[in-house]
Amino acid sequence: MPNTVEIPVSALENDAAYRAAVIDLLGLLAYGELEAFERLAADSALAPTIDDMGALAGHAAAEQRHYELLRSRIVELGADPSAAMAPFVAPINEFHARTVPSDWLERLVKAVVGDGIGADFYREISRFVDADTRAIINQVMSDTGHSDYAMAKVRAAVQADPAVAGRLALWARRLLGEAVTQAQHVIAERESLDALFMPNATTALAASAASAAATASAPAASAATLDLAEIKNVIERLTDNHYQRMFALGLAKTSERA
Amino acid sequence: MPNTVEIPVSALENDAAYRAAVIDLLGLLAYGELEAFERLAADSALAPTIDDMGALAGHAAAEQRHYELLRSRIVELGADPSAAMAPFVAPINEFHARTVPSDWLERLVKAVVGDGIGADFYREISRFVDADTRAIINQVMSDTGHSDYAMAKVRAAVQADPAVAGRLALWARRLLGEAVTQAQHVIAERESLDALFMPNATTALAASAASAAATASAPAASAATLDLAEIKNVIERLTDNHYQRMFALGLAKTSERA
Repeated sequence: MPNTVEIPVSALENDAAYRAAVIDLLGLLAYGELEAFERLAADSALAPTIDDMGALAGHAAAEQRHYELLRSRIVELGADPSAAMAPFVAPINEFHARTVPSDWLERLVKAVVGDGIGADFYREISRFVDADTRAIINQVMSDTGHSDYAMAKVRAAVQADPAVAGRLALWARRLLGEAVTQAQHVIAERESLDALFMPNATTALAASAASAAATASAPAASAATLDLAEIKNVIERLTDNHYQRMFALGLAKTSERA
Repeated sequence: MPNTVEIPVSALENDAAYRAAVIDLLGLLAYGELEAFERLAADSALAPTIDDMGALAGHAAAEQRHYELLRSRIVELGADPSAAMAPFVAPINEFHARTVPSDWLERLVKAVVGDGIGADFYREISRFVDADTRAIINQVMSDTGHSDYAMAKVRAAVQADPAVAGRLALWARRLLGEAVTQAQHVIAERESLDALFMPNATTALAASAASAAATASAPAASAATLDLAEIKNVIERLTDNHYQRMFALGLAKTSERA
């Protein structure tokens, strides 16, 4: 993981563009968590046993707590949570509409892939925010226990019937593709997030980042600019992590990309 | 509310029939809470605004916590939670299958009526259990805030369009009828619960109740027997409470039965 940019917490008060970007980011994460709650609750309702039903209800409730945390933080920053979430309803719903699982195993794979990409995204974005915002993101990233649960179930199913692996591997690839597509839409449509990912793109954010870099260690200064090379690196890391998860699920022969 | 029977906590250890009855009861309540979670989560997914979606997710998560509490208690008593819940899956699912709301308002009315009947049932049953079991039931009865939320939404809708009141009143009556039908099935099929409601029906429970009554105040002794007159009283109370809720919802002109 590359260096972290130390944006001062005071930027939330002094820097309107940075503040707007953080509220946008929190809105995106909040709606993402709320949707994760809905998805896990729906999985719970369709679970094959009462045990699974109860376990998934617990995972859903953990996502609801993450949502609540993000929502409270948006209120704390003086913004309206519904307004902050609104721009992200369409792309997140679109992702789910384009990736409706056709059975229980596809649901589990979607949970593992979706949670994984989400956690990777949180980890990347947390490099470009102030310490207070990073603390919230880290709390929200804390495991709900769901990935381990879903991963164990998928692995067991693949071992019991290796024939399902091909179909599930294709499904996972489609999920990754749709997630990247919707992420591109979000970044293209929300200039503030764009600014967060590329701090040099706006004067205000550049000023924040520069003043922060001045007090941080030298390597952080270059990390502040998420330029094209850096974006390529981010995508590389996300993809590498995805292939590692595929291997862990028993859906790929190696953890390297084909 | 009539008197409470003081069954000693030690009956959980000394009295196999009483213990089985309590595990059955906890299984019933646990599955009921899990189903309440599922229902509220489904309501959340269909909510008309992001605000409502978030509020309902919170109410669902509160039910999940109640479920978790009951589940832990079943484990604490050395029983298997899934096995304890299993006998109640069919009647509770049957209730929900027979009462599928056709729109958002019917969903809200179902939540108010269902929660209300549930709370009434918890209050009645808590008279016939030991103090430890009663403490769990009281915690689970603690409000999720959902009834107030749903009641306010229904009241506002009826005020805005009084024409919906007739349809919703009929719907509420059907919900009460279906709940009573399924409750009768449960009591008829689960002898242990029958024993809990009518302690004199089994020797073991009668012994527990009698030894408890000896140390309790005089009126408690007669309350120990949930005889036919008492069952009539319970049904009266449930129905009276239902009509009071109908009045509060704006679905009845008075809080008295027609």
